[in-house]
Amino acid sequence: MPIVKKHLFHAGALRDYMIRVLESAGVSNTDAAVSAEVLLSADMRGVESHGIIRLFPYYSRRLRQGLINPHPTLRVVNETPAVLALDGDNGLGHPTSCRAMEHCIARAQEAGAAVVTVRNSNHYGIAGYYAMMALGHDMIGLSFTNASPLVAPTYGRTAMLGTNPIAVAAPAGREWPYVLDMATSIVPIGKVTVYEKAGRQIPYGWGIDGQGEVTTDPLAVFHGGALMPLGGTAEMRGYKGYGLALLVEILCGVLSGSAFGAGVDSDPHNRHSRIGHCFAALRIDAFRPLDAFKQDMDALFAQLTQSPKAAGHERIYIHGEKEFERSQQALHEGVPVMAEVVRALIADGLEAGVPFDLEPVCTIEEVEV
Amino acid sequence: MPIVKKHLFHAGALRDYMIRVLESAGVSNTDAAVSAEVLLSADMRGVESHGIIRLFPYYSRRLRQGLINPHPTLRVVNETPAVLALDGDNGLGHPTSCRAMEHCIARAQEAGAAVVTVRNSNHYGIAGYYAMMALGHDMIGLSFTNASPLVAPTYGRTAMLGTNPIAVAAPAGREWPYVLDMATSIVPIGKVTVYEKAGRQIPYGWGIDGQGEVTTDPLAVFHGGALMPLGGTAEMRGYKGYGLALLVEILCGVLSGSAFGAGVDSDPHNRHSRIGHCFAALRIDAFRPLDAFKQDMDALFAQLTQSPKAAGHERIYIHGEKEFERSQQALHEGVPVMAEVVRALIADGLEAGVPFDLEPVCTIEEVEV
Repeated sequence: MPIVKKHLFHAGALRDYMIRVLESAGVSNTDAAVSAEVLLSADMRGVESHGIIRLFPYYSRRLRQGLINPHPTLRVVNETPAVLALDGDNGLGHPTSCRAMEHCIARAQEAGAAVVTVRNSNHYGIAGYYAMMALGHDMIGLSFTNASPLVAPTYGRTAMLGTNPIAVAAPAGREWPYVLDMATSIVPIGKVTVYEKAGRQIPYGWGIDGQGEVTTDPLAVFHGGALMPLGGTAEMRGYKGYGLALLVEILCGVLSGSAFGAGVDSDPHNRHSRIGHCFAALRIDAFRPLDAFKQDMDALFAQLTQSPKAAGHERIYIHGEKEFERSQQALHEGVPVMAEVVRALIADGLEAGVPFDLEPVCTIEEVEV
Repeated sequence: MPIVKKHLFHAGALRDYMIRVLESAGVSNTDAAVSAEVLLSADMRGVESHGIIRLFPYYSRRLRQGLINPHPTLRVVNETPAVLALDGDNGLGHPTSCRAMEHCIARAQEAGAAVVTVRNSNHYGIAGYYAMMALGHDMIGLSFTNASPLVAPTYGRTAMLGTNPIAVAAPAGREWPYVLDMATSIVPIGKVTVYEKAGRQIPYGWGIDGQGEVTTDPLAVFHGGALMPLGGTAEMRGYKGYGLALLVEILCGVLSGSAFGAGVDSDPHNRHSRIGHCFAALRIDAFRPLDAFKQDMDALFAQLTQSPKAAGHERIYIHGEKEFERSQQALHEGVPVMAEVVRALIADGLEAGVPFDLEPVCTIEEVEV
């Protein structure tokens, strides 16, 4: 595997830089702070594909090109006691989604459970961030978004659905919360890029070529091919991953009244991405006493992590555990950013008139897996 | 692949027989009719592993052994406008779940969305049945259940979680509704049985042996091994399938206050299965006008099914489509039941004093896939 050089920065310094960049693109300080926090949280949790690497291409540049509205007005389209349908007015996905999830939590506080959709939004970063907002309120949080087409349906050969993530967070007692944050494709497209840059073949099953045949050539995936849904081939039940991606598309694209399928972020008649999101919150003590729930969560996790390990393995994980550990490490030792990403930040920062002048805490070399 | 002989029966005749068997085991006519309907629906939709094959081993025999309560009282444990937590009083899973989903739909009618949990229940058959109950009310329905441990967590080698299904149904306009009904393992255990009976190896990835190594030997899966979660190996992101199975366990086992993980249906100190379920319903017009939703569902399905096909394939499916077609065929031509299952029904029926005396409409031979 290739060796990747990374610079470590103070979390606060990265946050401040991202706020400055977004403010210079016309966003309010309040909204810029929210977007910076969500992006930083991705880098801290080890989801580098969704962090500061996206600051210029996904957000700052699109704001400057007039493709994202820097001063959106979040509008209520419809509401009932347990439902809120919102229109994001083409604003940044992060502040829009934070507000949507706050509304969702407030409604679940009253009704016990609530579901909120958002139409006309933009990329919202890591899905798990919004699901995790429920944890502090002793709720189970759910978060979904659609995205630009990258995944082919089973028996198809053209990308028709996004990597449409599903994220769920549920609190435990003494243990870290359960945080599932998964693309419904096998891997995100960024993973294929890593292999391509390293001149390596991708594992059989991750992607297909332009004829719909499984390929191990990363370039074939990029040039007319597509990612495969979780599960992979029909024999391995890839149609279940396709079904989950379609579920996310129904909740975020169709139920919200936003773009869906091939129309997301790629409608030639509409320059706005028209991405849609869906959030849900379940207040745990509407179902049973909170303490009993948390005790049972710990007990379930203990059953799993203490069960016998497969040959060659020493640890069974609960979802989110690795990311919490990485996040703590990043807080103490600095947030790792790939040297290649730092070079891009320097170039993009100069162009935007907000030079990336941060001094790294230190530099490390890591084996990319 | 092996040739399988099947007898076709009138749907009504199968339903009446199942009602008679359950009534003779002490169940009321009303409840027996519900259970029979859910089991019949599985056979009609082509999910033979969850249909009449289970009548004696899962239901009639357990009722006669006093393991299932034939006269349960469904009790409210907790409630808020959008939440209902129920106790199934160890009754049959089908009537309990139908009532739970009816309550869920009624609450979603008022609040816009609702979530209902059930603790202390039993096997409820196909998850999709309850999700589909929402369709007639122009709602999106969701249904989850935990089950006896059969799936190992990633890096583990012992079955700790059930095949914990996720089912979602959403109405369309002129098209069949979307109905996803999937185990969170790659395949159900019954699929491994089919290969074992045919003396064939299972595809690489479906299961592991007692050491946690991927095996192609069906017997190794049965003897100390386990099924793999959707995705399979860690390289193919099997931890996502494990994460989905864990999500279902949290919703159905922990949130409901029922048994969870290794304790489901296998607690040596409690002879009741203590299976838990979770249901949800979203009223579509709480989010946006129903007609617009249905039109967009049709448009999304058209995008997918009309997209270019992979080499060697002629059709892209929407989830549920195949099952609706099979169901219509079964209504007209008869419901197929494997000859082997008919032999078991005859033996079990004699033992229970309710002879299986149905005359098949015809007999066919099918290639088992």
